[in-house]
Amino acid sequence: MLDMARIRADTPAAAQRVFLMSAGSSLMPAPVVQAMRAYLDLEQELGGYQAYERGSARLSGAYACAARLINAAPQEIAFMESATAAWQMACYSMRLKAGDVVLTCEAEYGANFVALLQLRERLGIEIQVIPSGAAGEVDLDALRRMITVRTRLICLTWIPTNGGLTNPAAEVGRLARAHGIAYLLDACQALGQLPVDVEALGCDMLSATGRKFLRGPRGTGLLYVRESFMPQLEPHTIDHFSAPWVERDRYQLRGDARRYETWESNYVARTGLVAAMDYAMDIGMDSIAARCAILAGRLRAGLEELPGATVQDLGSRPSAIVSFTVAGRPAQEVVDLAARAGIVIGVTPPSSTLLDAERRRLPVLVRASPHYFNTEQEIDFALDFLRGVAAAPAGR
Amino acid sequence: MLDMARIRADTPAAAQRVFLMSAGSSLMPAPVVQAMRAYLDLEQELGGYQAYERGSARLSGAYACAARLINAAPQEIAFMESATAAWQMACYSMRLKAGDVVLTCEAEYGANFVALLQLRERLGIEIQVIPSGAAGEVDLDALRRMITVRTRLICLTWIPTNGGLTNPAAEVGRLARAHGIAYLLDACQALGQLPVDVEALGCDMLSATGRKFLRGPRGTGLLYVRESFMPQLEPHTIDHFSAPWVERDRYQLRGDARRYETWESNYVARTGLVAAMDYAMDIGMDSIAARCAILAGRLRAGLEELPGATVQDLGSRPSAIVSFTVAGRPAQEVVDLAARAGIVIGVTPPSSTLLDAERRRLPVLVRASPHYFNTEQEIDFALDFLRGVAAAPAGR
Repeated sequence: MLDMARIRADTPAAAQRVFLMSAGSSLMPAPVVQAMRAYLDLEQELGGYQAYERGSARLSGAYACAARLINAAPQEIAFMESATAAWQMACYSMRLKAGDVVLTCEAEYGANFVALLQLRERLGIEIQVIPSGAAGEVDLDALRRMITVRTRLICLTWIPTNGGLTNPAAEVGRLARAHGIAYLLDACQALGQLPVDVEALGCDMLSATGRKFLRGPRGTGLLYVRESFMPQLEPHTIDHFSAPWVERDRYQLRGDARRYETWESNYVARTGLVAAMDYAMDIGMDSIAARCAILAGRLRAGLEELPGATVQDLGSRPSAIVSFTVAGRPAQEVVDLAARAGIVIGVTPPSSTLLDAERRRLPVLVRASPHYFNTEQEIDFALDFLRGVAAAPAGR
Repeated sequence: MLDMARIRADTPAAAQRVFLMSAGSSLMPAPVVQAMRAYLDLEQELGGYQAYERGSARLSGAYACAARLINAAPQEIAFMESATAAWQMACYSMRLKAGDVVLTCEAEYGANFVALLQLRERLGIEIQVIPSGAAGEVDLDALRRMITVRTRLICLTWIPTNGGLTNPAAEVGRLARAHGIAYLLDACQALGQLPVDVEALGCDMLSATGRKFLRGPRGTGLLYVRESFMPQLEPHTIDHFSAPWVERDRYQLRGDARRYETWESNYVARTGLVAAMDYAMDIGMDSIAARCAILAGRLRAGLEELPGATVQDLGSRPSAIVSFTVAGRPAQEVVDLAARAGIVIGVTPPSSTLLDAERRRLPVLVRASPHYFNTEQEIDFALDFLRGVAAAPAGR
């Protein structure tokens, strides 16, 4: 059982508004903000480098902390400034070449897909999209049939930014392993929402953000690279930290995943990220996942009964990201009305997941993403509000 | 005249220690830290995206602010998470190819040089090092003679991380322009120390950091790319912000320098950076530069008279970065003793500027970098301390 009294006390903003936007940028719990404030104070008092020296024990512990969170080893973790930066570092470092095939899914995130398009243009790789099965997840049989000797990389978004889906990431991992194909998993919306276990997932690379379900600061992310995979993944950019300058004409790549980092980092943010990881593990990822499922299920069930609202979600294992439309109401209007009613939700445009949006002819969607700090009452309040919006005559 | 009373009041840590490490990571003035705290509070209160919406006027003003600081246009500015990230984005985006020659200087920063080595290995470019003249600066006549049709890029560190040098960046710019060669200027140690005017410098790309002489937060940097040069500089990595996904098989690069950014950013840090830029411009870059020169000159002159100390600096226009050795004392020992005496200075290893260090057979150096918030008394206090260290028998 979650200690909701403590959780709510640590999230003072939740008392002011019904915050259903953890898939965008969540509310940081008090210990995260406190850690950042304290570190910022230290920097002001000592200067940036001296503050780091003072705080370095905790900061070096960040690698072990992240490793524990995703069942990796500390030397497999690199801290990045966003999930996108982490994903880019992995994908662009793959040294793909003309004719290589990259498999990805219909719900792949826009940031990733445009990068693949750039690599296609630059290198002549081929992008193949794995079709979705009847329930909306990536079709594993289709994937199996698509694998050839040319298949170099599988890029999968585990939990897409909209559409409610949870892709079968571990099943894809088993296929990738069986065929010796590199596997890059985008866990941006998964980390902090679900237990993440890189061994069970079988991914070679995993990217994630701090600011969403993990409730960490903006401008933080992490990259996992399997130790055995690292020799194949030379960072596509280096500096004197990732690759010390050892002789006039020679650098020496670091042996651990920090070869994907640069020397400079934002340690205020890093400190907050560590606090966020500790906070999540302290509550327990299983408890968090269970609570997310209950609240998102309640919201989805309520919306499905609501005349004028249409849930636009797929998948047999729905995520805590609930997407919907309200008949006759543009998504932005619903969001603006909600804001005035003290409910924080957002929109998600077709360009975030263009393939899926085109296939399903989706307009801009409303997106509501409950998290464990929300309550059943808040979900019901949001549903009551949406019932009112759906019932009221559109336009004014 | 500088308002030293206000400046010292805004820098409370300066009353606790003699802080001579602005070339590492400087002390943030109070308005910078206040802006960051306030923005962090806003994120805690509203969530990351809503805080951005609330603060977006000031944050969008960041581009105009940075443009004013370096005499550029707002659309020529990209915010990056460090000077290194900015430099990498510029250099790796150059689409160099086998046989292209890149010219760089003997005092080029290690982070940059290893990146060039990687590009040499990957692409077959050729790196040529412009020799230094008698005074230590890049030799302009030699540079002129080295330019051929194969010369694609000149990479210059304006103020090296040690060695006291200020390279003739504008003169190099004139040569680059005259020969139509791309020019990437590393202004990491210059921004906040000297007036920076990209028109006078004639650079096509400029990278800089927030945390050094600009007194901004860690994890901030900026990239300038001349508008007319941008079509030649496709970002080597993209996301859906830098290159919106407009059709199934097509992205559309942004027309401005934000094509070098990603969607996600750390806005706590960005807010601090804006405050730091405003603070510097409010004091005035000419006044800051003059004050830096006076204090660094006083320190260097004192060291030159000090038995046992050797100034290891070059250049006819010395920067505010003072490098030296103390006979019989390893640099780290001097720094540690200084810390105990309340003086914050640092070491700088040969690998930071390996070519220069090898040429001059430099050991690890002590580095002291005064800034305008320091006082003559502090310089004299540091000199007194160093006199004692140099005079005392080594070892114990």
